[in-house]
Amino acid sequence: MTGVFIAVEGIDGCGKTGFAQALAGHLTQRGKEVVATREPGGSPQGDAIRALILSGADDSWDDRSELLLMTAARIEHVRRTIRPALDAGRWVVCDRFVGSTIAYQGAGRGLPVDFIRMLHARTIGDFFPDLTVVLDLDAGTGLARSRKRLTRDGSGEDRFETLTQEFHARVRQSFLDQAAADRAAHVVIDASRSQDQVIADALAAVDAWLDARG
Amino acid sequence: MTGVFIAVEGIDGCGKTGFAQALAGHLTQRGKEVVATREPGGSPQGDAIRALILSGADDSWDDRSELLLMTAARIEHVRRTIRPALDAGRWVVCDRFVGSTIAYQGAGRGLPVDFIRMLHARTIGDFFPDLTVVLDLDAGTGLARSRKRLTRDGSGEDRFETLTQEFHARVRQSFLDQAAADRAAHVVIDASRSQDQVIADALAAVDAWLDARG
Repeated sequence: MTGVFIAVEGIDGCGKTGFAQALAGHLTQRGKEVVATREPGGSPQGDAIRALILSGADDSWDDRSELLLMTAARIEHVRRTIRPALDAGRWVVCDRFVGSTIAYQGAGRGLPVDFIRMLHARTIGDFFPDLTVVLDLDAGTGLARSRKRLTRDGSGEDRFETLTQEFHARVRQSFLDQAAADRAAHVVIDASRSQDQVIADALAAVDAWLDARG
Repeated sequence: MTGVFIAVEGIDGCGKTGFAQALAGHLTQRGKEVVATREPGGSPQGDAIRALILSGADDSWDDRSELLLMTAARIEHVRRTIRPALDAGRWVVCDRFVGSTIAYQGAGRGLPVDFIRMLHARTIGDFFPDLTVVLDLDAGTGLARSRKRLTRDGSGEDRFETLTQEFHARVRQSFLDQAAADRAAHVVIDASRSQDQVIADALAAVDAWLDARG
């Protein structure tokens, strides 16, 4: 039996990464073999592209180049990591997938969403997560949390987190719109509460979705 | 006055690189300010992508990823190097451009040429060389010359040169087809003779094209 592909999406600071880890642990406890992965990255080729994208200053890459690099990383991620895992019956929990490209490069940076979708269709095909969990948070709160984290661990890797609140508001709206357009494959969780509450709610929502799926 | 953009194309071993250097010198002697560049590469971003593409084994990248990486490198090359040079009235001599992507990734590797052209149109736009010089050579001779060179310099950088003769025959035919489809912007030179003869012929052809252009 093929595995189940679950993506976790949301603006920076929404708690995606912590929830993705909790979800992987939760599914493992339920007896699933789980592969936890992330984008951009998730394969040696994808990680090399991730390093290229994230290392630069904000104007290093044209928006179109960035879109093509993100998509190239996804092609390798899908063919080397995600598809083989699913084919082997493993479950895949992925921190960001094509929904983030539609939200960030499309709604955020203003590239035509039809072009982003066409690029996905012509290079990866009709391949999407079975379920996408959107951790929904307003842009102001997300940015405040991101800044706190960047100050704390001095990581500062993510140049996307330096962009403005207006940008993140557009990104948030895109995640909500994507969920509204395909409710059967999305759950939206209010991520404004404490991390424990958000994780508990989101795990319950995933369990409910899995039970309904049978 | 805007500059003139000349690309040099052909299969590996056709003498492109030597001719591109000779052409840059020739145009400089004619009083032009010349920028000599190459693909993939031609900008710091493009060079970083070039290193990613060329460093791997032949199966490192899916054909589709490779196409997106090549195109991302071209976006950066055009916006950072080629367009600014042309806008400043400089002449640009470029060793390979989109014709190579159509020939190698399209005819060679079998990706749909309509997709390659659409990708160019939607990321770079209606931007093509004013003149493309195709150094035409049969695949067997090209491969023999490439092998000799690789043995001599031990460079071995170019993983494309390890592919088969049948592949290179398709690539050659694509360059000829592209030239046939747009004769006003192409000259085709028989590159089977000595390097000096080929360079002399090709320079004369470029001069004739420039004189006709006025």
